Amino acid sequence: MYFMFKKRDNIKEVEEGKYLAPKFDENGLIPVITADFQDGSILMHGYMNEEALKKTIETKEAHYWSRSRKKLWRKGQVSGFVQRVKEIRIDDDQDSIWLLVDIGNGASCHVGYRSCFYRSIPLGKIKNDENIEMEFKEKNKKFDPKIIYKDENNPTKL
Amino acid sequence: MYFMFKKRDNIKEVEEGKYLAPKFDENGLIPVITADFQDGSILMHGYMNEEALKKTIETKEAHYWSRSRKKLWRKGQVSGFVQRVKEIRIDDDQDSIWLLVDIGNGASCHVGYRSCFYRSIPLGKIKNDENIEMEFKEKNKKFDPKIIYKDENNPTKL
Repeated sequence: MYFMFKKRDNIKEVEEGKYLAPKFDENGLIPVITADFQDGSILMHGYMNEEALKKTIETKEAHYWSRSRKKLWRKGQVSGFVQRVKEIRIDDDQDSIWLLVDIGNGASCHVGYRSCFYRSIPLGKIKNDENIEMEFKEKNKKFDPKIIYKDENNPTKL
Repeated sequence: MYFMFKKRDNIKEVEEGKYLAPKFDENGLIPVITADFQDGSILMHGYMNEEALKKTIETKEAHYWSRSRKKLWRKGQVSGFVQRVKEIRIDDDQDSIWLLVDIGNGASCHVGYRSCFYRSIPLGKIKNDENIEMEFKEKNKKFDPKIIYKDENNPTKL
């Protein structure tokens, strides 16, 4: 544990105070929303442990905790698609992070798209006997995962 | 459990397919990023269970699972600050949601600010013997929580 974070003494201080006092969950993680600083679009949703948050603040490059690989993960260490951090925000109860990053013309999603959120769910009444068909909002991949990742395992779990 | 969601049979289908097959975690929840559809700024980070996701899709009003109150939560039911859903996206492995909502000139944060992410964490080397001092990015609250919430308990937990 790092002693740089303020102890969460009282709710008023956590919500209205100026000191960073993040809450890590029972697995030692805090959820992270990563957005493109240029247009605000969401690139990915990840998690940090204390070390990843510290490294992200200090190096200005996004670091996460990979839950599938169970290790600290400097984003881009395999793909080259590093995320340069422009701003870090934290929410009212300090249990989630909003990261604004610069990825230039690169990509963020291991499937090959710029954003992980490339599919849109239709709104309105759900029919009981049919699967819900989504729309692809990104038409083309930015890279071929087979070329970039070679023999790396796919981090997606069923 | 609703049978409207496709079974998560294989990774290729989950990532590259067109059918909604969300993954709920061991608590039956999926994390949700809620953004202002007008400027993309993040308003809050929440969670949905299956029922909340279904209600959000069908009613086009954001519903969440309140972890602190342990119940389905139609956003705005107390405060009046309803979130009208403009678009719902899901990520590559279908374990997180990006909600684009219209809150007009309203607010989203129970502390009184428009966004829950009203504080910014400074970047760069962390001093070992000092707390990290954040900057307030929203200067004024949109409402007074004491007036809006009256005797409701504060959902923030230490």
